[in-house]
Parts: sequence; C-alpha cells; structure tokens
Amino acid sequence: MRMYDLIEKKKTGHTLTTEEINYMILGYTNGEIPDYQMSAMTMAICFRGMNDKETLDLTLAMRDSGDCLDLSKIHGLKADKHSTGGVGDKTSLVLTPIIAALGIPVAKMSGRGLGHTGGTIDKLECFPGFTTALSEETFIHNVNTIKLAIAGQTANLAPADKKLYALRDVTATVDQMSLIASSIMSKKLASGSDIIVLDVKTGSGAFMKKSEDAKKLAETMVQIGTMAGKKVAAVITDMDQPLGNAVGNSVEVIEAIHALSGHGPSDLMEVVYALGSKMLVLSGAAGDEASAKAAMKETIDSGAALHKLAEFVEAQNGDPSYVYDTELFEKAAYTIEIPALKAGYITHIEAESIGIACMTLGGGRETKESKIDLSVGILLKKKCGDLVKEGDTIALIYANDMKKAEIAKQQILDAYAIGDTKPAQSVMIKAVID
Amino acid sequence: MRMYDLIEKKKTGHTLTTEEINYMILGYTNGEIPDYQMSAMTMAICFRGMNDKETLDLTLAMRDSGDCLDLSKIHGLKADKHSTGGVGDKTSLVLTPIIAALGIPVAKMSGRGLGHTGGTIDKLECFPGFTTALSEETFIHNVNTIKLAIAGQTANLAPADKKLYALRDVTATVDQMSLIASSIMSKKLASGSDIIVLDVKTGSGAFMKKSEDAKKLAETMVQIGTMAGKKVAAVITDMDQPLGNAVGNSVEVIEAIHALSGHGPSDLMEVVYALGSKMLVLSGAAGDEASAKAAMKETIDSGAALHKLAEFVEAQNGDPSYVYDTELFEKAAYTIEIPALKAGYITHIEAESIGIACMTLGGGRETKESKIDLSVGILLKKKCGDLVKEGDTIALIYANDMKKAEIAKQQILDAYAIGDTKPAQSVMIKAVID
Repeated sequence: MRMYDLIEKKKTGHTLTTEEINYMILGYTNGEIPDYQMSAMTMAICFRGMNDKETLDLTLAMRDSGDCLDLSKIHGLKADKHSTGGVGDKTSLVLTPIIAALGIPVAKMSGRGLGHTGGTIDKLECFPGFTTALSEETFIHNVNTIKLAIAGQTANLAPADKKLYALRDVTATVDQMSLIASSIMSKKLASGSDIIVLDVKTGSGAFMKKSEDAKKLAETMVQIGTMAGKKVAAVITDMDQPLGNAVGNSVEVIEAIHALSGHGPSDLMEVVYALGSKMLVLSGAAGDEASAKAAMKETIDSGAALHKLAEFVEAQNGDPSYVYDTELFEKAAYTIEIPALKAGYITHIEAESIGIACMTLGGGRETKESKIDLSVGILLKKKCGDLVKEGDTIALIYANDMKKAEIAKQQILDAYAIGDTKPAQSVMIKAVID
Repeated sequence: MRMYDLIEKKKTGHTLTTEEINYMILGYTNGEIPDYQMSAMTMAICFRGMNDKETLDLTLAMRDSGDCLDLSKIHGLKADKHSTGGVGDKTSLVLTPIIAALGIPVAKMSGRGLGHTGGTIDKLECFPGFTTALSEETFIHNVNTIKLAIAGQTANLAPADKKLYALRDVTATVDQMSLIASSIMSKKLASGSDIIVLDVKTGSGAFMKKSEDAKKLAETMVQIGTMAGKKVAAVITDMDQPLGNAVGNSVEVIEAIHALSGHGPSDLMEVVYALGSKMLVLSGAAGDEASAKAAMKETIDSGAALHKLAEFVEAQNGDPSYVYDTELFEKAAYTIEIPALKAGYITHIEAESIGIACMTLGGGRETKESKIDLSVGILLKKKCGDLVKEGDTIALIYANDMKKAEIAKQQILDAYAIGDTKPAQSVMIKAVID
C-alpha cells in the first residue's frame, strides 16, 4: 500500500477502505507518512468528504493510535461530557458535581485553554493546591469513592489526532465535518467512558456559525459514538453571546459556585439541565428528562451538589473552604466599570471579542507556553435584550494592569451592539440529537 | 502575508493575486514555506484550478526563482523545442540539425531520461566523448558558429519548479493543467530562446491521454509564452504507439541518423516536419509551411543536415565518424526475435509497455541514480495497421542479459494487440496551436 495511491483515490472521489485508513493513520503517527502527503490528503478530504463508514474508521484508527483508558475498575456506567468550545463556558464546573451527587461516576479528561476560549483545568487551579496530575490509581479510586475526578490529559491518548490537528491548523483544513467529528470522538472514545454527552455550540461565538452545520456535526459524532458501542447524545446550544455573565478564570469559578448555590444565570442553567438530563437518562438513573431535571434541582436545593464540588476539590488536593467563601479567591488589583455609550437595547455581544478582551487582560493563552493570570476577567452586567441608559454599567473589568485594561475596555465596547429595537430572545437549546 | 491565508483563499475558490503568487513561490523556494503547506495548496489548485492570469503569474514567479539565461550574445532569433514526452521520441536529434543547417540558431537545454521515457542527453552520449557540460562561453560560441548546441541543465534554472514538481510527484497533484503548463513554460522561458515550439503528445502512451486535454494544455502554454513575449506554437502529435521503430538509446540515434540520411520512418518525419516548419515560419526564415517543409527536405537531400549533426557532435567533443558509420556504435550481446503469436492486423502497441520493456533491458532509469546501458533497445518491425502471419517477427530485442530479455519479451508481446480488422490509420498531427 502506498500513501500516494490513497491520496489519488480520495482526490478522484473514491472511498477509502478500513485497511487503507488504518495504514494511513498508523504510518502518519509513526512518522513513515510525511506531513506533506497528509496535508494533501486532508485537503482532498475537504473537497471530497468522507462517508459515515470512512469517518468511523478514521475515528477508530486515531483512537487506537495510542493508549485507551481502561476504566473497568470503576463501578457502573461512567459519564463524560465535551463542549466544542465557547466563551464563558463553565458548564463542566456546574454539571459534573450535580451528576456525581446523583451517584453517576464522572471520569473526565479536561484540557487547558488556548486562544480566546478557556479551559476547565485552568479554572480549577483557582483553588490553591488543586492538581489534575493524578495517577491512574488515584483517578479510579476518586471516581469510585466520590464519583468525580477530572484529570489533565497526561496519557498518550489519540496521538494521531494530536499530530493531525496540528497539521490541519496550519494548512487551512480544520473546517471539515468528518475531520472535526473524528478528532473530537477519537479522544472521547480513548478516554473510556460509557456515556458521552456532547455540547455542540452554534452562533457567532462558536466554531460552527450555522445551526445546520452544528446539527450535522452533532449527528455525525452521535453516530460515530453509537457505532463504537457508547451511549451518546448531543445538545446544540446557543453561543451568539458569552454563556452566563463571567468570563475569566476565578470569576467563572465563582459564577459556577453561585450556580451550585441556586443563583446561576438562566442561560447557563438551561445548558446544564439539558446536558445533565441527557446524561441521567442515558445512564438509566432517570426515566425521563423531566424527572432528571427535578433530581438535578434537588441536588442544588439540598446543598448536595455544592458539597460534592468541595469534596472533589479536596480530593484533588485543593482548598475546599473556597467553595463556601468565594471572597477567598485572589482578586485583581483594579475593577473598571464600562459604561454604555448610548441608550437602547443590547442587540448583540460578540463572544469572540469578549474572549479576546479576557486574553488581553492576561486571562488566556496566546501560545501553549503562555502563563495566565487567574484573577483577571470580565463580568457582563448587561446581556442581549437588556435595556440600558447612557452611562449604565454594561460590564466590569478585573485587571492587574491598567494599560491592558484600557485595550480590553475598547474591545468590550466594540463587542457590544446597542440598538433601538429589542432583539428576539435567543433559544438556548436549539436541538437535541440522540 | 501568510501562506495559511493563501491556502484558505484558493480552497474557497478565490483568485490569487500576482503579489500572493510571488510571495508563495519565493517563500517556497527559500524554504520559509514548508512542503506541507505547499502540498495543501497544490491539492486545492487541483480542485479549484487557476485562471489564465494566475497561471501566467505562477510561471513567471517560477522562471524568476533562479537564473535566466542571457542569450543576447547569440545573433538572431534563437529557437528551442520541447516535447511533453513519449516513447521512441528522437525528434530533437533529427529536427535540431535540420533547423541549424537552415541557419536558425538552436540553443537547447535538454534532460536525461527518467522512467519509461528516454532523454536526449543520454542518447547523445552514445557518441563516445560527447559532453553536454558546456561553459556558457562555449555554448554561446557554438551556437554562433555552427548554429546548434545542446547543454544539460546545469544552471540554476527555475529551482521553484524543480522543488514543486518533486512535491507534486509524491502528493498526487501532477495532473493539473495550470501546474503542468507553468512547470514546462517556467523552464523554457528561463532558457532564454525567442522561439519555442512545443510538441504536445496525446494518446495511450502520452501523459495527456485525451486529445482535448492535450489541446487545452497546448493552448495554455502558447498563451503563457506569448504573454511573456515569446514566439510560441504547439503541435499536438499522436502517441498511441511508439514514435518511429527504435526504442532505446543507440538504436534511436541510429534511426535519427537514418532519418537525416533520407530514410526516416514516416510518422517520425511527419512530426519533424510539423515542428520544424513552425519554427522556420516563426523565425521568419520561411514564408509559409510548404516552403519551410521543402527547405527542410533539401537539407536532408543535400546531406547538409547529416553534416550538421556531425559538426555538432564534434563541437561537443563527440566522435563524428559514428554519424557516417552507424556500425561503430556499441552493440548489445544478444539479438532476440519476437514472433507474432497469431495472424492478423496489429491493432495497438502500448507505448508505455514498450518503454518499460526497454527499462527492463537496462536502457532506462528507474531512479535518478540508475546507470543505463546505452546499447540495449527494441526495434519494432511491425507497427499499427501492419498485417502479420503467425511467427512473423514483430520486434527485435537487443540485450546484454538473457534473463532481462525474457521479461522484456513478455512485456513486448503483451504490448502488441493483434486483431482481425485493419485499424484506422492514426493521424500523426492532431492540431496546431499558435
């Protein structure tokens, strides 16, 4: 078999066999197939596409390119969630303690933030002492005892995907449905959970700008996961503006703690309930989504979910007292109010620009090596549909550097659109695919 | 400017500007743009194509990526020819002495053979002592005095094309019209001649299988050359079977000598006359093609063309006595007759298989480093349309290794198709583009 022939085959619109895809991914992972052949192939895939069988084969080949976690020592069906990424997305911080409090084991791998989107691990490190560098033994022990553990991706999971993604990122071949779906699902399948719930973001602040593209991606990923023997569902959620009010690391953790205390922003809670009820139904813990949602609410009302967060933070070496007293989190030196420049309705908040403003403040990574400032961030006081008078505070900036704050302020002002007509309220849950 | 954005632009169907193409070719030549980005680009070009302006820009950028020969010290309009490659194609060996004998300066760069097609330089080296490693001074001196010099491509001509072609060759992106046309024309333009006549082969043994593809390529190349200020024409010629009867190095030289002595196979002579008369008309040496052809015939009848070959061989350090006594050429140890396996008409001779049989005998290069055996080859005694009885000799093999000869024999037998119906005679000159 020769990679040349496989490129030619895909270029001329033919279907690659399982053996051919396995050959390609194995050869690429071990360096026998060079980058320049692989990038020609991914560009050909951008034009010719891959059918469902090819997409599944590619996912499984990438899953099998490295280690697959063996979670069989964890009792019961293990649940995981994945978000395609957005600004202000602290869903995992709220959702996972609720699910764990209901007795469903959550064994999650998470990543750090890059670019204008944040990462769960960075946020968790706002708890002093918190670590995600867990041994396999501790990880499994924690899930078995408190039902929740979140680890950094230290194992050699889907190295083919890592290498291929880096290549696609520099050759303009990221935005192809089968390549995106197989990239996400190869890592999720290698992570070993039985239940996978996917949060596919759509809107101006999401990778999938169009709802129909998000739907197609969700369908593809659910199909892959199902064919690979997992219980999978996807929820398509709105990312036309940032999720919730807080954007930054410690501010998002504080917002998550408020949410677990019963004071979460409604858009965030809608997403949490939609994803969580899917998890509970798939696990068999709830008969339907209404009873699942009721059970989730009960964990908040009873304090069980907040307690679970504290328990989880402590189990991973963090200081749990912060969960009960958010004043303890390190504060930024300056708080700057941003006033509305005119009166009217907030018609749009460009999520990506808010994410970039947070990065400007030092709260995000420009490159993998960047060190981030956990205490800076943005609090959106007004969101889409809110009526403001000129001079009303629309957002707060928490900054440690006034020069950076000035730049961020302008970025935030530019992100806000104010108009005369009240915009239609956006629907948070666009569709559920299972 | 970033290569990433150019890939994205081409991928989404937009047109690249002159500045963008120059940036890309300069960056690729000097190594700043990596292979993996360039191969993604060439694959995108395979799907999106390039318009006439982009194709011209690409050609000129590649021409300017290295040295351009300055032939201004040569008196008069300099002529060059290029063939897209075929089996048994010894046209240059016959054509260039005729044109030079008519006083038109021919300053030609030639290449060595690779794969199943031969190269002019290898053939010329059948004359003991012959060298194509000429200093620029000698090259120009020879053209000024005897009107003909053929040099190996030692100068740094169109290095971008060299690098890009090697990449396309391993990424299944060779067969794109603009990429082919710009590759050929960038080298021809850098070689400095004023008149370029292109022999675009078409048929089962050519790179362009379909006549309409050959026509499109010819039109594109003529347009590029004309826009670059050259006098250019293209002749589309048949390559449904090998050209002439001889395939190999010394056997082809001997056939060329016979042709210059008035005994050339008719298909070869048709191609020689078609290309040559275009050269003479473009140079102004002939008013029309009929008088051009008459003038060419006269150089053969008078012995002037054969004498010019001898003069040229001697000027490049070769032994000219071989021109007048072909028995001097080194002979292969064995001559094997190949008999027709059944009676009937020869309906087809697969040119590529004959080329591969010659390579099997040792007469061609599998890799650039291969050493070739100049004395081996194949002489086709029967060609398409000939009637044979069972056992008639259809071809002769000249071999130095009986094992290789056995394999080549089978390849040749497989290349011949014999049927009951006489096939239509193929038209050698399909079209002329100027």
